[in-house]
Amino acid sequence: MRSPQSELPQVVADIVERLRQRRPRVHCITNAVAQTFTANVLLAVGAVPSMTISPREVGAFVGRADALLINLGMFDDERQKASLAAIAAAKKARKPWVLDPVYIDRSAPRAALARRLVAKKPNALRLNEQELNALGGKASDLAAFTRDAARMHTVIGLTGERDFVSDGTRLATVANGDPLMAKVTAMGCAGSAVVAAFLAVESDAWLATTAALVAFGVAGEIAAERARGPGSFAVEMIDALHGLNRVTLIGKARVT
Amino acid sequence: MRSPQSELPQVVADIVERLRQRRPRVHCITNAVAQTFTANVLLAVGAVPSMTISPREVGAFVGRADALLINLGMFDDERQKASLAAIAAAKKARKPWVLDPVYIDRSAPRAALARRLVAKKPNALRLNEQELNALGGKASDLAAFTRDAARMHTVIGLTGERDFVSDGTRLATVANGDPLMAKVTAMGCAGSAVVAAFLAVESDAWLATTAALVAFGVAGEIAAERARGPGSFAVEMIDALHGLNRVTLIGKARVT
Amino acid sequence: MRSPQSELPQVVADIVERLRQRRPRVHCITNAVAQTFTANVLLAVGAVPSMTISPREVGAFVGRADALLINLGMFDDERQKASLAAIAAAKKARKPWVLDPVYIDRSAPRAALARRLVAKKPNALRLNEQELNALGGKASDLAAFTRDAARMHTVIGLTGERDFVSDGTRLATVANGDPLMAKVTAMGCAGSAVVAAFLAVESDAWLATTAALVAFGVAGEIAAERARGPGSFAVEMIDALHGLNRVTLIGKARVT
Repeated sequence: MRSPQSELPQVVADIVERLRQRRPRVHCITNAVAQTFTANVLLAVGAVPSMTISPREVGAFVGRADALLINLGMFDDERQKASLAAIAAAKKARKPWVLDPVYIDRSAPRAALARRLVAKKPNALRLNEQELNALGGKASDLAAFTRDAARMHTVIGLTGERDFVSDGTRLATVANGDPLMAKVTAMGCAGSAVVAAFLAVESDAWLATTAALVAFGVAGEIAAERARGPGSFAVEMIDALHGLNRVTLIGKARVT
Repeated sequence: MRSPQSELPQVVADIVERLRQRRPRVHCITNAVAQTFTANVLLAVGAVPSMTISPREVGAFVGRADALLINLGMFDDERQKASLAAIAAAKKARKPWVLDPVYIDRSAPRAALARRLVAKKPNALRLNEQELNALGGKASDLAAFTRDAARMHTVIGLTGERDFVSDGTRLATVANGDPLMAKVTAMGCAGSAVVAAFLAVESDAWLATTAALVAFGVAGEIAAERARGPGSFAVEMIDALHGLNRVTLIGKARVT
Repeated sequence: MRSPQSELPQVVADIVERLRQRRPRVHCITNAVAQTFTANVLLAVGAVPSMTISPREVGAFVGRADALLINLGMFDDERQKASLAAIAAAKKARKPWVLDPVYIDRSAPRAALARRLVAKKPNALRLNEQELNALGGKASDLAAFTRDAARMHTVIGLTGERDFVSDGTRLATVANGDPLMAKVTAMGCAGSAVVAAFLAVESDAWLATTAALVAFGVAGEIAAERARGPGSFAVEMIDALHGLNRVTLIGKARVT
């Protein structure tokens, strides 16, 4: 473990600064509803997004990217083929990848695909409680949640009123965020893309995932202070991510 | 008829309150341009959107949804297959559905599909005058428009400078709205999704459609007061829909 | 040449006014990330967008449009087929078309398609330096850039910190714009759509392309004055395009 948990806010700020210096490329295979907002969120944090889902060229894009996001929010054949090709390319190039199994609790075939992809051991899995349950997770208490992460051999970032991050050993609790985040479509999807961006510049996947959720939640709090509703909140969220700085992050991080 | 037309503003406010309590799920098969804005509009009024177009899982989503929107703004094979599967699932589960035959006046094959779907008797049809003409509608005067609704066995919500809603017997005229609504892409598509959300909590389709167009138009007026152009108008529209309340709705509704 | 370069600001203002009077239809085959923003940008400048990529109906849409945009930001089979059909329809109807070869520097098959489409002689080609290089362009100096345009038999609009426009003979340099434009996804794609809209009302493609880049850049400067980050910048950009007027354009144009 590279840092005691009391230093997590400083580590979050360090990773954000590194992200802005390195400007990593993040390739996203994500659903049509999320694509534009996700791309703008990635640009705002300092990453460079690409989004093609063409199976013919996804390998080239992933090979030149620094991290990959696979989001299952759309389940068409083309995205499935692209996802498998992209994961293979990421593994070959030893690039980190994140799986976001959106809505697998609502569709059995989608849940089956998610299980297949979890078996390929993503560096991080970002989901909510219903989606974790659909993967056979428990999350009834923190010990069970930690065992889920150990069993799946990945870092799980479980988001909700509070966020929890475990790699099977360590556990972080993130209390940042705002209820308006649930009123903007693709907010969770964009958060998973931010996890991928953080993984691109921080090899400790538990730390990267925790830091991403802290930074995203802090931006959500700043945006909520300025917003009059979910429309202006989405706009302010992009501005807040773009404006995040060391002082704000350390002052507002609520992570243990 | 459940209420005299003079009570319509109160009924609109009642339906909006019911929508927020029940938080109905609305499944949308809609075009790529409209997806994100439509999802955010549905979240803002209090509904929960889903958007998959995969023929394999659309049945599961519609089965668990409370209403369905079919928007013809894209005419690819996958969306056509998904639309037919979704309508079948909605009919089987007795869930209301709305058809929005976008741009059928510009494409003969799309108009042919629209006629085929109208024959399946959507609970409501939301369109503009050119699109109604492409379906053989007249709309030259209110009597002809009412006959169109009777002939098609559906509620027609005809939007334009003024909106008209008929079920073949009753007729409502809605004078709410703002010209900026025509300067934001997918505004009409999002309005049709709001009709679907209202149908989910109000079984009288004429009342639901009228109420949806009133609420959407009132939000447009509030947004226009705050906007400096179509960019900020789209943002303010989401905020205004989210902030709609009984007093505002009743004070601003112009429906007869 | 219709006007000396010292009169370019006035000519830009003339074209913008003509655009608002004629409200040309612009059909766009563009990537999923760009579709909504592009449609809203076109509406804001006074054009009427359509976006279908269905090969079956794209001919009908292009036939009734006044200009066409082909954006290679997604490389799926359906968009490729649609692009070829759309270009054929545009040529048949003698409508101007613009090619935006997004990210061809990152994908060899996409670059090959771009070369094939350049050979079909678009009225304008809008790209950045990496993309021009991937087409065999030099752009090492202005003379080499002018030769690129002559060799490709098209107008090239090369955007970057400064924009350059050449038709193989004439050369314009545009110094308008703001760095925030690079922090919003699909900003370049939307700029290419504006080029198409200007081509619809100005037959001199070099003038139309130059004017479009000036107007877009001026709007970017106005938006940057009002924005707090890339989220609000995107919103302000739409408002600024919508609010462009003769006085502002002539006062702020920096074109030689």
